Amino acid sequence: MTTAPDAGLLAPGWAGSPAADATDDRALVRALLDAEAALTRAQAGLGLAPEEAARAVTEAADPARFDASSLAERARGGGNPVIPLVADLTKAVGEEHGPYVHRGATSQDILDSALMLVAARALEPLLADLGRAERALARLAAEHRDTAMPGRTLTQHAVPTTFGLKAAGWRALVLDARDRTTAVRSALPAQLGGAAGTLAAFGAYGAPDPLALPAAYARELDLCAPLLPWHTLRTPVADLAGCLAFAAGALGKIAADVLTLSRTEIGELAEGSGGGSSAMPHKANPVRSTLIAAAARRAPQLAATLYGSLAAEDERPAGAWHAEWEPLRDLLRLTGGAARDAAELTEGLQVRPEAMREHLALTHGLIVSERLSAELAPVLGRARAKALLTELAGRTYTEDRSLAELLAQVPELKGLDLTALTDPARYTGSAGALTDRALERR
Amino acid sequence: MTTAPDAGLLAPGWAGSPAADATDDRALVRALLDAEAALTRAQAGLGLAPEEAARAVTEAADPARFDASSLAERARGGGNPVIPLVADLTKAVGEEHGPYVHRGATSQDILDSALMLVAARALEPLLADLGRAERALARLAAEHRDTAMPGRTLTQHAVPTTFGLKAAGWRALVLDARDRTTAVRSALPAQLGGAAGTLAAFGAYGAPDPLALPAAYARELDLCAPLLPWHTLRTPVADLAGCLAFAAGALGKIAADVLTLSRTEIGELAEGSGGGSSAMPHKANPVRSTLIAAAARRAPQLAATLYGSLAAEDERPAGAWHAEWEPLRDLLRLTGGAARDAAELTEGLQVRPEAMREHLALTHGLIVSERLSAELAPVLGRARAKALLTELAGRTYTEDRSLAELLAQVPELKGLDLTALTDPARYTGSAGALTDRALERR
Amino acid sequence: MTTAPDAGLLAPGWAGSPAADATDDRALVRALLDAEAALTRAQAGLGLAPEEAARAVTEAADPARFDASSLAERARGGGNPVIPLVADLTKAVGEEHGPYVHRGATSQDILDSALMLVAARALEPLLADLGRAERALARLAAEHRDTAMPGRTLTQHAVPTTFGLKAAGWRALVLDARDRTTAVRSALPAQLGGAAGTLAAFGAYGAPDPLALPAAYARELDLCAPLLPWHTLRTPVADLAGCLAFAAGALGKIAADVLTLSRTEIGELAEGSGGGSSAMPHKANPVRSTLIAAAARRAPQLAATLYGSLAAEDERPAGAWHAEWEPLRDLLRLTGGAARDAAELTEGLQVRPEAMREHLALTHGLIVSERLSAELAPVLGRARAKALLTELAGRTYTEDRSLAELLAQVPELKGLDLTALTDPARYTGSAGALTDRALERR
Amino acid sequence: MTTAPDAGLLAPGWAGSPAADATDDRALVRALLDAEAALTRAQAGLGLAPEEAARAVTEAADPARFDASSLAERARGGGNPVIPLVADLTKAVGEEHGPYVHRGATSQDILDSALMLVAARALEPLLADLGRAERALARLAAEHRDTAMPGRTLTQHAVPTTFGLKAAGWRALVLDARDRTTAVRSALPAQLGGAAGTLAAFGAYGAPDPLALPAAYARELDLCAPLLPWHTLRTPVADLAGCLAFAAGALGKIAADVLTLSRTEIGELAEGSGGGSSAMPHKANPVRSTLIAAAARRAPQLAATLYGSLAAEDERPAGAWHAEWEPLRDLLRLTGGAARDAAELTEGLQVRPEAMREHLALTHGLIVSERLSAELAPVLGRARAKALLTELAGRTYTEDRSLAELLAQVPELKGLDLTALTDPARYTGSAGALTDRALERR
Repeated sequence: MTTAPDAGLLAPGWAGSPAADATDDRALVRALLDAEAALTRAQAGLGLAPEEAARAVTEAADPARFDASSLAERARGGGNPVIPLVADLTKAVGEEHGPYVHRGATSQDILDSALMLVAARALEPLLADLGRAERALARLAAEHRDTAMPGRTLTQHAVPTTFGLKAAGWRALVLDARDRTTAVRSALPAQLGGAAGTLAAFGAYGAPDPLALPAAYARELDLCAPLLPWHTLRTPVADLAGCLAFAAGALGKIAADVLTLSRTEIGELAEGSGGGSSAMPHKANPVRSTLIAAAARRAPQLAATLYGSLAAEDERPAGAWHAEWEPLRDLLRLTGGAARDAAELTEGLQVRPEAMREHLALTHGLIVSERLSAELAPVLGRARAKALLTELAGRTYTEDRSLAELLAQVPELKGLDLTALTDPARYTGSAGALTDRALERR
Repeated sequence: MTTAPDAGLLAPGWAGSPAADATDDRALVRALLDAEAALTRAQAGLGLAPEEAARAVTEAADPARFDASSLAERARGGGNPVIPLVADLTKAVGEEHGPYVHRGATSQDILDSALMLVAARALEPLLADLGRAERALARLAAEHRDTAMPGRTLTQHAVPTTFGLKAAGWRALVLDARDRTTAVRSALPAQLGGAAGTLAAFGAYGAPDPLALPAAYARELDLCAPLLPWHTLRTPVADLAGCLAFAAGALGKIAADVLTLSRTEIGELAEGSGGGSSAMPHKANPVRSTLIAAAARRAPQLAATLYGSLAAEDERPAGAWHAEWEPLRDLLRLTGGAARDAAELTEGLQVRPEAMREHLALTHGLIVSERLSAELAPVLGRARAKALLTELAGRTYTEDRSLAELLAQVPELKGLDLTALTDPARYTGSAGALTDRALERR
Repeated sequence: MTTAPDAGLLAPGWAGSPAADATDDRALVRALLDAEAALTRAQAGLGLAPEEAARAVTEAADPARFDASSLAERARGGGNPVIPLVADLTKAVGEEHGPYVHRGATSQDILDSALMLVAARALEPLLADLGRAERALARLAAEHRDTAMPGRTLTQHAVPTTFGLKAAGWRALVLDARDRTTAVRSALPAQLGGAAGTLAAFGAYGAPDPLALPAAYARELDLCAPLLPWHTLRTPVADLAGCLAFAAGALGKIAADVLTLSRTEIGELAEGSGGGSSAMPHKANPVRSTLIAAAARRAPQLAATLYGSLAAEDERPAGAWHAEWEPLRDLLRLTGGAARDAAELTEGLQVRPEAMREHLALTHGLIVSERLSAELAPVLGRARAKALLTELAGRTYTEDRSLAELLAQVPELKGLDLTALTDPARYTGSAGALTDRALERR
Repeated sequence: MTTAPDAGLLAPGWAGSPAADATDDRALVRALLDAEAALTRAQAGLGLAPEEAARAVTEAADPARFDASSLAERARGGGNPVIPLVADLTKAVGEEHGPYVHRGATSQDILDSALMLVAARALEPLLADLGRAERALARLAAEHRDTAMPGRTLTQHAVPTTFGLKAAGWRALVLDARDRTTAVRSALPAQLGGAAGTLAAFGAYGAPDPLALPAAYARELDLCAPLLPWHTLRTPVADLAGCLAFAAGALGKIAADVLTLSRTEIGELAEGSGGGSSAMPHKANPVRSTLIAAAARRAPQLAATLYGSLAAEDERPAGAWHAEWEPLRDLLRLTGGAARDAAELTEGLQVRPEAMREHLALTHGLIVSERLSAELAPVLGRARAKALLTELAGRTYTEDRSLAELLAQVPELKGLDLTALTDPARYTGSAGALTDRALERR
């Protein structure tokens, strides 16, 4: 029985994304073959194999000739796909140069290197999409630097803020994700250690300086040279887990805000192109945010599995390594897909300043009570100011009148510019300055 | 860009398994179509649609006509695959009966029902494989009821036990997994609620008793009738999470023991057919256990994501629902694959009683020191017995002699049958009786 | 250096709750001592120890005499708190009966049994609080059986529903949690196996039928008799993980809805007594829901750790067992605290039907467009009906008029009772009947 | 009802550790008070409060005067401990300067800043213990640079390696953990934003440049100045999650290896001081490794909860923030405790080169079959070499003879130095050179 291929039917978040393309079985076969070919070329470069062998392997390592389904099926015997792949590749290379295929390596050398290649390739569009989102958010932050809106804490209006500051905050998270991901990407290492990480076989095959081989191999793959074989020193995988979980969560913050602010009752934001509903023609669902939010819910647990695999016994663990493969790919896909959605979301986001302004009035002016506490105390004395505000706060709701209106009736406050003091749009504090400062970060 | 299908290249644990077959995109398309056809049939059964429409939809709902890749791609717009599927199915049914496709339903009705169908279908082979493992373990437990081996705690020899008791314990876990999974499987419900779970559209389409519809629908699908639409009451999904995480962990216990006991230095167990290595021809790796262990490392975090989705706001959440789809399938696959491996592992397991017996002597007889503490106290007095044993324990190692030998030199112990008292194989306590009792459980 | 005790400063969700009281170090010392005393009593009951020893141990096992901090400190040496506790207890019992303390048992027997006692004691108030919540929700569901409100999907208004149905759904989840928790609680087993689970020491101490001892021990503790020693068959712990993660998630659903519906812009619900803010005197924060939501975010990962510990090697694992202790207690506390908060939340919940009704009009009547699609098709023909609704849907927003108003101008619809057809409160489908049915469940 | 304090009875891994001391409720009260006092001082420094107020608050902020239990209890009302703390502190400061307590701040400013202080203080001993472990491992690696031992993959002997390389690998992980943790520690920011992160209240209280305040505040606390208030931009918490999960996992790798290699049958390593057993006097359990392993099993899921809290809605989320507090402290404690155990473990580790050497012979010489494949091919031809080795591999086991012995009978191999070629200790490849290189890293 062979497993029918999955096309991403349950994955609207990543199906069809560049990250999906960079991580699917086809891409993985390519990366595995790239790793094998690079190994022979690196050996040839050091005089450990004939140049013709390197050419023959490189030529034979053509993904189109390999059948992922068959490899998957045969992977079951030895527990990893490199074993059947080496068999097929050796056969494809032919009798003469076949012995130079995979020479001195262990399956893990190839699979780990291939997964690093896949990661490097998947992070490229992910970083590009983070860049798109960052630029879109910079525009939004600048444009709405002074667009006042309610600041909300524990679901309730607190004090005013600006949409500019919110967008600048989102951007700061995107930049944090970019910085962490870029650092990890630039350090992704090739893997080469042989059966138990001592490079011994390369010596047996005649290498005078086996330590030169991992470096040459890494150069062929455009990956970093590892300090040590990392078969059970899984820093690179854990680092990927960390930066991807971070990125997914950072985008999840944006999604959480957009989902809240595009609720029917709030409507301060709307996705550029909402998704339809099969039952309700009028609905414009915030689909991009929904899919990002779903990714953010899953990523931390995938990362947890990868962090858990750090505790890997021996020179190759029985299970911890195998438990990394799918979660690592899932994280790359999910987060890559979320980055694509975040780019579209932020580039198309509709902002409705009038709804924001309208909501600032929803608490009858109490949204600026913090300010009034501060400003009335010097005039009325702290105790009287507090008592007055408490009394008026109650009356705003029972009498359905604004705080400004009620304050205007207080004789002692005649000299104050109550219009200014009670205008939520004039109580956004340093939101503008913070936005400016945040936008200076590149 | 379309995503190339995955064939399970990174999944030797489940690729090609019956569980994989029951959960792949092809199986999912089938289940989605089954759900749609059942809906129209249920409506026809209650007089809400013509019988011809039910026949037309059932006939059109032929998986061979639908393209999973295309559905996956178009799922992105609205965030779920049912929307394009309904479009394609409606077209396939034709103008006359097309309006009866999906009538009154919401995407979630179909996707949830389809996932329950998929779960039901995937749990069947999983339960069958648990049954195979259970029977193999019962045989092993009976056969090795009195095969003594070292009991190990915190990695060190403690007191003797038997392999029979160990196998009986493994079987108890498999039975626990079977019981929990069977209970969950037999309660899997169909989903039907319409746009917001009120069944309102069915009334609008003329149903005199809309509550009859979910029951009829469930009968068509051979699933349970739900008490309420469960769009955001996710008990069925959480229950699946629980029983699958349990089953994966239960099998993980067996794998953990086999991995330990088949270590080169221990060799008390061996997998029937070990996996080869690409670099070391002599190695017989415990591949089945390794793959089970990998599944057991991943399942808890997948279950955590599903438990996390219980906290789903509104009548359909923006993200929590979407975050369930892939993890639920992954759990079904992983655990199904682990059950297949466990069946093979237990059926082929090689037991080496001679290695077990040999290891019982490794601690120079100290493995029965607990017994001697108890039996010498009445003879020597508690204090003297303790002091003697402490002294002799030290000497066994420094003099490389067995405890029995040293005890034989103690005059006060002349009357005791020291051979019997120091024979680890005679200090297995109630292991036999416990094994018998455990095997009575069916 | 000794660790200063934690009083729950970071845990407003569970500090001071009955669950906290049942699980703190003091309660744990009590449970450990209960387990030790029960063991000696069980042995006395079977004639394996003098009755006076049982009395002496029971009397000495007075929590007031034991110092949790000192035990904690000395637990470090052997890696568990039972070792120093046995030393202290033996000393307290005195020379004569001291040898009957802990006789034949292993630390894990006592700690596992104590944790089951703690769980049983913590689940009692948890179940009581679920009961309070269930009754409060039943009242709310009955009272608001016909209180119409917007049904919301993916954050947007979909079709109307009722608050009664929502409350009935919440109650169904609470009942599911109660049922799962009750089943687990009633099966919590005592643990007794001796050093490696064979009960061998009890035989060495003269028990003619060691299998009788676990049963007698379980009776003393009012726990279930285990089929087998479960030192590494961790079903009871995994079952607790499952029911507690479920319960936390079920309550998390209620909290998620309350948080959404008590937003400043929505205000359909309010907590009975909102929490204050240090900076904004007017705020009434949904604190109970917030704390429940926080618990629901944490519980799944705690459960994952416990499920992960199923894969426990040997007769006592080096780490998997130790990794259970704190997460199990944390889960009991968190979920117990969440149940307390849920009881208070549901008992005090303020429902604002007028806000619900008002919001039904927010979409200009489009919230019933599903109904109109169904009802206009027979009158206008399907195609014309669809086109008309699409056109009018657009106009409702651009002209700021209601759908009812616009429909009234369509001549063909003269004969229809448009007031009824467009009244959201009359399009709640089977919400009432579903509520009734759900309330029949006990 | 008040919760009795926990003293760490279930936490032998961290109870009594410096990390525990730096994170307990007492330490937290101190940090909260430090944060409040620093805020008033920072305001005084900018002329926004009288110097006397700063002195009064600093003096009143004496942890000895505050009752953690009472604060914990009263935290329940508003959902955080800062509210009652501010009340108590204000009262303690007295009427004159009381108004300067907490002025302009929100609870989250104080709690977040305090948690960063606690983290900074807990990371100090953690880093010191990583340093101890690193130095111990450097010594072990250097000392055992050429101590050959079996390399093990998937539990089976693969090819030889050295203990030096293994220790060097462990050290590399410890250095990775140190580097990641140091980077995070040096970037821990103070938090200051006021009610919704706009610093508005500080302006209302007269600050001409509110942006200067967070910087001044950070200086007072010896934390970094934040670019933006990070109430819902949780990079610092996620970064802590990442480095701590990494550190726990890195130490977990060491523990996993020690646990394996100290098994009774293997005994290549032993902990310096094994833990006793309550039932078996002869046992020397690897307790330090066990407790580290337990921490490594828990840390990833705690980190997952923290990563999950990145998706925090609004200007302060209802739950996501609250869900961070305990897991963050748990991670600091667990990992700090594991670092202490790792320092003790590595400093006291006993290495048994003779056991390692003995085990190299366990596979009858097949542990060097990889080498022979490489070296015999040029002599015999590839096909003949392979066939010969396969045949002899079988015979080594059936005839219980070594590979060297059997090879000596093959006439064509007369010219080879079979003793050298089949000596496992001479097939450690580049292990020595890799160790040297790894030790150059500082």
